[in-house]
Amino acid sequence: MAETNPSKTHNLRADGARLWATILETAAFGGTPAGGINRLTLSAEDGRVRDWFRDACEAAGLTVTVDALGTQYAVRPGRDMSRPPISFGSHLDTQPTGGKFDGVLGVLAGLEVMRSLNDAGLETEAPLMVVNWTNEEGSRFAPAMMASAAYAGDFTTDEILSKRDAAGITVAEALDAIGYRGAEDVGARAIGAFVELHIEQGPILEAEGKTIGVVEGGQGIMWFDGLITGFESHAGTTPMPRRRDALLALSEFALAAERIALAHAPSAVATIGEAQILAPSRNVVPGRVAFTVDVRDPRSPALDAMETSLREAATEIAERRRLEIALTRIWRKEPVPFDPAIVAAVDAAAESLGHARRRIISGAGHDACNLAAKVPTAMIFVPCKDGVSHNESESATPGDCAAGADVLLQTVLRLANAPRMEPPAR
Amino acid sequence: MAETNPSKTHNLRADGARLWATILETAAFGGTPAGGINRLTLSAEDGRVRDWFRDACEAAGLTVTVDALGTQYAVRPGRDMSRPPISFGSHLDTQPTGGKFDGVLGVLAGLEVMRSLNDAGLETEAPLMVVNWTNEEGSRFAPAMMASAAYAGDFTTDEILSKRDAAGITVAEALDAIGYRGAEDVGARAIGAFVELHIEQGPILEAEGKTIGVVEGGQGIMWFDGLITGFESHAGTTPMPRRRDALLALSEFALAAERIALAHAPSAVATIGEAQILAPSRNVVPGRVAFTVDVRDPRSPALDAMETSLREAATEIAERRRLEIALTRIWRKEPVPFDPAIVAAVDAAAESLGHARRRIISGAGHDACNLAAKVPTAMIFVPCKDGVSHNESESATPGDCAAGADVLLQTVLRLANAPRMEPPAR
Repeated sequence: MAETNPSKTHNLRADGARLWATILETAAFGGTPAGGINRLTLSAEDGRVRDWFRDACEAAGLTVTVDALGTQYAVRPGRDMSRPPISFGSHLDTQPTGGKFDGVLGVLAGLEVMRSLNDAGLETEAPLMVVNWTNEEGSRFAPAMMASAAYAGDFTTDEILSKRDAAGITVAEALDAIGYRGAEDVGARAIGAFVELHIEQGPILEAEGKTIGVVEGGQGIMWFDGLITGFESHAGTTPMPRRRDALLALSEFALAAERIALAHAPSAVATIGEAQILAPSRNVVPGRVAFTVDVRDPRSPALDAMETSLREAATEIAERRRLEIALTRIWRKEPVPFDPAIVAAVDAAAESLGHARRRIISGAGHDACNLAAKVPTAMIFVPCKDGVSHNESESATPGDCAAGADVLLQTVLRLANAPRMEPPAR
Repeated sequence: MAETNPSKTHNLRADGARLWATILETAAFGGTPAGGINRLTLSAEDGRVRDWFRDACEAAGLTVTVDALGTQYAVRPGRDMSRPPISFGSHLDTQPTGGKFDGVLGVLAGLEVMRSLNDAGLETEAPLMVVNWTNEEGSRFAPAMMASAAYAGDFTTDEILSKRDAAGITVAEALDAIGYRGAEDVGARAIGAFVELHIEQGPILEAEGKTIGVVEGGQGIMWFDGLITGFESHAGTTPMPRRRDALLALSEFALAAERIALAHAPSAVATIGEAQILAPSRNVVPGRVAFTVDVRDPRSPALDAMETSLREAATEIAERRRLEIALTRIWRKEPVPFDPAIVAAVDAAAESLGHARRRIISGAGHDACNLAAKVPTAMIFVPCKDGVSHNESESATPGDCAAGADVLLQTVLRLANAPRMEPPAR
């Protein structure tokens, strides 16, 4: 096989046109009239795109295996087969009204990396591996990102196999139905590093005119359930000062949550995504309102401070308005810092390619966030139109997709040809 | 029959114990386990309480007739039968989970007035009439207060007869089913004055320790439908400054509506009774919120000013938050001033009886508000516990009910024995 002289690799590029063609070709598996994809995990459509991916990988000379949760691993040999493979990929499942890029880009760009290296006749020191993780989206089976979580040891394989969809079908049954319950133990395969290319699913890169986001980590998340208990009363007969209006209390709390997030700018976000007046009526002062709060920041201490501030706001509002505000934290996920060496490799690759770039934090969850607990990991973001994702109108340009694949390729070459890394103590 | 020398009438009192007994007795027609009443208009239960009322009136020597919309009129002769009867009453229908007092008190106190006059052997100059208006509540057939509205000429009888309930049954069919489609033309019967005793359905009298509310009129009402159109986006990836969060816009608007009502204190009220995030999700920034606004004040210019202020607030919020707020007024009902002479008679009666009283505006709609357009009208309020109404827990004390009946009796005597009044020009 061919040589690895760096002077022969630094000008290597992915074939953006071929990548784009595979994106359009695979979009037909579950394609919707509106131009999106409905390809729920482990559905027949998911089975078909998995078959396509296996065949394409094998045609590129890769060795494809499947683990007990259906995750596909496609390996390209390296010169030193004792090194764990430098790995990359994402997921091929989609939301029920998903787009053509979320997850798909990362897997197909991974395939393109393999094809481009083949075209150039280049061998790497470490082997390479492209991965298609099962059920990133979580639309059919909860939790989302379940296969990567199981890989990282957050769940046992049996726990995941017994999860059921809304129709009562287990993950095990769904895997069997499409023939993707593999023999390989989940988490058994060593991974030297993991790099996930993904659309940003947010508006920052587009707004700032950047092509590449060098992702430094994933945010921490807190979810709260809230219930405001005031007093239902007649909209015509209850004077304003005597009201205990649960919606007005929610209004103040929502604006307080916005102020609290802005006080931790620019990284913090807080969202009241659900709010429901119980037994609403046009001429009744709302007595009870149930709501949710989603709070995120890449810094644990900021999460702590925001929780304290939210509780102080709730207490102040409840006392002043003579009602009760119950705020229950139902989930907290700590921030995920990506591996500095992998982040640096992404940054250097983007710089070498001359792409406008910025450091960024992933606002959404990704398989890479699970992997990071076990494997040196980072991500590459490219812009998506208007920040829209999880929508059939999700859109990214061929140029940005190609740029992301180029950065992935150059990152992978740097990592695979670098002196052997020891995993950091964790 | 007996004399009308005022010296013989000013000490006359209703029999509070007998009134209370009739309240408890008739509460059995549609009585609920929780102590309330489920007696929808023109239901079998409504038919039974109507029969009871007719029998009780006839036993008291009254002449009972029924009009084409089922309203019952029970007349006690006066010395001058050329005078239109001084009238009083309310309604015997209830909400599906209604209480024992809303409407019922006014009708049964009217019966008690008749019985007390019989006991005392007193005749009045003008005849007296107690009325049970059909469908005040509007729970089964819309609109509410339909019979009094038809009496006042707001609807034709045929319009009302053709209204249907949720099961498709017309008012005409429902009247026939219980035998209460009377022969008398709606609105044909002259009424000299109308006085309605009712529970306040609000907290003011109780809070201020007043027994009697001398009701000066009904509020004007405006109803609006609102729709805020921002942009749905990812709760994790959308920075706070880039959001177009429809719930935060609603929050600001709701607090603005509260401030606007308080700026017209103490009479104005504004309520967002319904608010719904469209397609809500815990981790999605709300893109669209539909809501309602209910605004009331006894002064037309205050309604005008509040509408202007609400629209200014909506415009300011929409511009600042880069979204759209559509505010559509779907209904406006002008304030109803009651007749000063009738209000003065109520006030004088309450004063003569030594009851703690205050002038008050009716926050809710009542049959009296419809009558006022055609007949010199006023109302008497008594307190209800915690201001709660339209609820099985609705509660009023025997003492307050008796006080209300006493004020009604003394008001009626003043009006019926006063020199003949000319109706004011309207």
